[in-house]
Amino acid sequence: MTQPASLTRTLAPGPAAADDAGHAVDVGLLGGYLLGRWPDIRRAARRLAGDPELHRLDGQSMAEHRRRVRDQLQYLVDHGGVHRAFPARFGGADDPGGNIAGYEELVLADPSLQIKAGVQWGLFGAAILHLGTTGHHEKWLPDILSLRLPGAFAMTETGHGSDVSAIATTATYDLASGEFVVNTPFRAAWKDYLGNAARDGKAAVVFAKLITPGRDHPVDHGVHAFMVPIRDDGGAFLPGVGGEDDGLKGGLNGIDNGRLHFDNVRIPRANLLNRYGDVAPDGTYSSPIASPGRRFFTMLGTLVQGRVSLDGAAVAASKAALAIAVRYANERRQFTASPNAEEQRLLDYQLHQRRLLTRLARTYAAAFAHEELLERFHDVFSGVRDTDADREDLETLAAVLKPLSTWHALDTLQECREACGGAGFLAENRLSLLRADLDIYATFEGDNNVLLQLVAKRLLADYAKEFRNADFGVLARWVAAQAADVTLHRTGLRRVVQTVADTGSDRRAANYLKDPGTQRELLTGRVGAMVAELAGALRGAGKLPPTESAKIFNRHQHGLIEAARAHGDLLQWEAFTRALEGIRDPGTLEVLTWLRDLFGLGLIEQHLGWYLLNGRLSAQRARTLGPYLNRLLHRLRPHAQDLVDAFGYGPEQLRAAIATGAEAARQQEALAWARARRASGDFPVPEKYLQPEG
Amino acid sequence: MTQPASLTRTLAPGPAAADDAGHAVDVGLLGGYLLGRWPDIRRAARRLAGDPELHRLDGQSMAEHRRRVRDQLQYLVDHGGVHRAFPARFGGADDPGGNIAGYEELVLADPSLQIKAGVQWGLFGAAILHLGTTGHHEKWLPDILSLRLPGAFAMTETGHGSDVSAIATTATYDLASGEFVVNTPFRAAWKDYLGNAARDGKAAVVFAKLITPGRDHPVDHGVHAFMVPIRDDGGAFLPGVGGEDDGLKGGLNGIDNGRLHFDNVRIPRANLLNRYGDVAPDGTYSSPIASPGRRFFTMLGTLVQGRVSLDGAAVAASKAALAIAVRYANERRQFTASPNAEEQRLLDYQLHQRRLLTRLARTYAAAFAHEELLERFHDVFSGVRDTDADREDLETLAAVLKPLSTWHALDTLQECREACGGAGFLAENRLSLLRADLDIYATFEGDNNVLLQLVAKRLLADYAKEFRNADFGVLARWVAAQAADVTLHRTGLRRVVQTVADTGSDRRAANYLKDPGTQRELLTGRVGAMVAELAGALRGAGKLPPTESAKIFNRHQHGLIEAARAHGDLLQWEAFTRALEGIRDPGTLEVLTWLRDLFGLGLIEQHLGWYLLNGRLSAQRARTLGPYLNRLLHRLRPHAQDLVDAFGYGPEQLRAAIATGAEAARQQEALAWARARRASGDFPVPEKYLQPEG
Repeated sequence: MTQPASLTRTLAPGPAAADDAGHAVDVGLLGGYLLGRWPDIRRAARRLAGDPELHRLDGQSMAEHRRRVRDQLQYLVDHGGVHRAFPARFGGADDPGGNIAGYEELVLADPSLQIKAGVQWGLFGAAILHLGTTGHHEKWLPDILSLRLPGAFAMTETGHGSDVSAIATTATYDLASGEFVVNTPFRAAWKDYLGNAARDGKAAVVFAKLITPGRDHPVDHGVHAFMVPIRDDGGAFLPGVGGEDDGLKGGLNGIDNGRLHFDNVRIPRANLLNRYGDVAPDGTYSSPIASPGRRFFTMLGTLVQGRVSLDGAAVAASKAALAIAVRYANERRQFTASPNAEEQRLLDYQLHQRRLLTRLARTYAAAFAHEELLERFHDVFSGVRDTDADREDLETLAAVLKPLSTWHALDTLQECREACGGAGFLAENRLSLLRADLDIYATFEGDNNVLLQLVAKRLLADYAKEFRNADFGVLARWVAAQAADVTLHRTGLRRVVQTVADTGSDRRAANYLKDPGTQRELLTGRVGAMVAELAGALRGAGKLPPTESAKIFNRHQHGLIEAARAHGDLLQWEAFTRALEGIRDPGTLEVLTWLRDLFGLGLIEQHLGWYLLNGRLSAQRARTLGPYLNRLLHRLRPHAQDLVDAFGYGPEQLRAAIATGAEAARQQEALAWARARRASGDFPVPEKYLQPEG
Repeated sequence: MTQPASLTRTLAPGPAAADDAGHAVDVGLLGGYLLGRWPDIRRAARRLAGDPELHRLDGQSMAEHRRRVRDQLQYLVDHGGVHRAFPARFGGADDPGGNIAGYEELVLADPSLQIKAGVQWGLFGAAILHLGTTGHHEKWLPDILSLRLPGAFAMTETGHGSDVSAIATTATYDLASGEFVVNTPFRAAWKDYLGNAARDGKAAVVFAKLITPGRDHPVDHGVHAFMVPIRDDGGAFLPGVGGEDDGLKGGLNGIDNGRLHFDNVRIPRANLLNRYGDVAPDGTYSSPIASPGRRFFTMLGTLVQGRVSLDGAAVAASKAALAIAVRYANERRQFTASPNAEEQRLLDYQLHQRRLLTRLARTYAAAFAHEELLERFHDVFSGVRDTDADREDLETLAAVLKPLSTWHALDTLQECREACGGAGFLAENRLSLLRADLDIYATFEGDNNVLLQLVAKRLLADYAKEFRNADFGVLARWVAAQAADVTLHRTGLRRVVQTVADTGSDRRAANYLKDPGTQRELLTGRVGAMVAELAGALRGAGKLPPTESAKIFNRHQHGLIEAARAHGDLLQWEAFTRALEGIRDPGTLEVLTWLRDLFGLGLIEQHLGWYLLNGRLSAQRARTLGPYLNRLLHRLRPHAQDLVDAFGYGPEQLRAAIATGAEAARQQEALAWARARRASGDFPVPEKYLQPEG
């Protein structure tokens, strides 16, 4: 059959659509596969996300929305499943990966709920867990988990966001009293944008420069975290603490973001979260990590789960957006070739396919890459694989995937919104408000561009360390090794044999393009060449005075970000390619392979100028790229509904009026009406078919 | 001096910043130039947009916001300036262009206010004016202008948006009573997304298929407009009329959008707006335009001002966004090269320059193109130049500029939002909520992609008409003629002399790139080649059966849209280039020429793959493009503040806390604090500079 079966079925898995060639996606199998390593936790979290108690009520005032989300947090506590990352002795499950797998699904209940839960347990609670020691755990975790102690994570200041090391709040040890004195020296050092700070927070983990008296001069030990009570039981600020409400935001208005400042607030010495740095009663500082720089990055690294979970939440939101827009595009009809023909379904238009299916392809890639990130995160935080190198790799991976997936989610939500026209703008169809909520995902937990710059520096550092004198082939293998797993790596890379003198038919060019080895070479080659070129340009810059070095670096900043982004694209492509190995059903495998090709070749089309300029692709082959992508879109089109159904979201998670079958019902009613009118013989004749009347 | 002067001055025009080479922008002169043909009207409208009475109050509920905007409309009536498009005898000024020049500035008060005003006077009132005749004008315009008669513009249906010809509401002439019977046959034919429909509208201009009894069979004369009362003075629906509230939206929540349906509602024959089609008491239909197709497009064409004004509003919003983000980027400092160096200003980062200045360049291009569109609109609607060809040209120009500028506004608002980090997300800084409001501009008044497809068809039709047998050079000149004015056109086009064998230094390549003749050739050549290629691919499709023809067309839909977009890019570039001719101040001209080059060469970089693949740019020259763009960014950087100051928006229009100098004050306070601490000698020493303590 040529029509997708979706028009006559509900969102419950039904018979899959087979295309003309008989390929069909096994929706149940693919759906199960997408659930990944923690299927039961994901299913349970989706049930929670589908629970009306946890849904956003559109149109609530900011105050009402904040109250609702606060109450929903309590509901989460009562219904379980949000403490999995914590030790079993506190009611958790010692399951960091499973915790995030469940957490990220909450985005579909209400992103405000998700992020407020993230503030309470993923930041405030996690800081106590990871930066504190046993005494802190015993003292505070029970109340944090139960929500008796709501708290803020007071890291960012008005004056410093992504540059955490430059924050200006101080915590000075007072030898006389044995206390720390927490102080905000000026307006730019106010803590800002903190969830729970405007209203609900009773305490805050405050990041401040730890200052000890020193032997003959005060010493700044860099940023440490301190537990600081901020409000009394009546909700009033404690003496010395002040703050402001951040007020209305572009989204996430169920969270009470606010500012805090401290006027020489005294806290007990024991309130220093002292896992990585401690002060003895006599003012002596000690730390298990000698280097202040490494100590700082180690402390921040324990909080990587924020980035990991945003990556997953962005993927979940992208999936939901496509599930809504693809279903609508499969039911909605608009414009007709001739007055007697039925109007065309939106998804039959080439442009609509390009708009939605290319984003579907990246969503799959991002989903598979996220699953790998999550497993790596779990292995590190559960201690299975927890060397310094493992932690560093995890942090780099999170730093490159979070930007790509959060930007992708915004792009996808927007394109889906536009693809649904006016209906896409209504709150009842989710897309526009979800987009508004997810907007900030691109800049919080590390600004996307700042993160990509960190990734670029890591790429350069690895390059410098290993290949100072190596030739280009070695570098290509290195890039491949960064991305490919052992199995693939063992097979080695096919050498680039294509030349500008390349001849052959279009079909041969298409075969060339759809060869995963080709795609890998092209994607890998681009990263490698960009890094090598940057390394060359920046060579020696490190030996110059810092400001000179910074200037040279700055002249290549755009290139650095592009290299990091290309590296992320490659990682997503590799994850997609690895995921194909786990699919046993031939039809599903065939369709997903097309989708992977659409992703990989779409990336190459996007950077075609680079490939041509660098002689990586002949003009002849490049010319076949656009037509081949269109052919892939055409092939994938009958499977689009199955591919979004496999995401496993039902009406209780999607909650979009246009994704309920309402549009199909309207189309059928209109069609039936026209048929009846025609049958009755009183259907008006269009004027143009008449002789002039007069 | 190397630092922009902006840090020490307020937003009021101050001394312009000169760069190292002594170039300086004359901000006052440029500002005046940007005010265009209707400077006084724009200034007055900006004063209105700066009036607190007309400002959005963030955090209002939807109901409060709707009430406020309704009251603001009355305030606009009382304070004048919103009726300029109407005839003087109704209190207007017969000034269609001036009307829009003022109207589009209102976006900075509140986009809801702007669009609700547009619904009342630009759609509902304009339909009466342009589709009705004298009797209608006399009867309804006074009440519409004074707001005693608020109304909806009931064109779109749930089932049909951009395909207006397919709407299903009917108005059937009843010979016995001499009335029209307005009817909604099924759910998909409900009128939808109509401003004023949910609450305030007392009447609606309803678009419906006009059906007459005919001689022996009912005849469908196609879409016509009818005045239909919908609510009584108490606000209750009149008999036969029903409706629904569209509820909360992604933005524009000050407007009461809603749905309407009609159950055989009877209206007098005289309520047909009969300028382009009338029905005599005996049921005879007559029209001054014989062809139903041409008649339909003529009627819709009278409403082109919606698209013209959205183009202008999108430009105004882009300007405001950049004024906010550039100022902040000039004051905000983040990250330091070394502990002793001052932190860098955001705008000194290459990436930040690329993010903001490339968008500034397109904003200038879009502003100049809009001004030309507005003048053309004025000439047509004031009757100065009003042939069928003029109208068609105007409609095509509006159809290509509105998509480009509305998407650009969303892109710019988003990039500015992200460039301001967490501060960009707060309502107090405007960006995120402005973006939410403008989102729908991309799909209402014609979906952007549908409009671009119309433009592509026009390009193809012109091509087919004039150049069926012409060679490529003729085509190139044709494309140039579409874009260049007579003056430029007379000089003729420099022939493309560049070849792949091109040799020469980088400097020569840069000279080549900055030659406007080169930029024009490259941009023009691309449009021409794309259209010619499409024409070849679609040749003969028109002779096939409609469904076959549609299939072939659909296989090239992506290419069609890309060609239309490239055409629009070229038109903006040409408008920018023409605008340079009017600038007499050498410094201003130099800086704006760099900005134009940044825009033109940025477009070429964006489509580098195409240029290389089609042999239009040698690899050698292509390689200089990126470095040259970076050089342009570096040159433009000292002038960025002046270039946004010239937009002429003050704090009362921008209303962004971060664009008030607050950030500069915070930076200075922090700096002064650090200096004082260092002077006092008690500044803590960083641990890493100490000997180990123990």
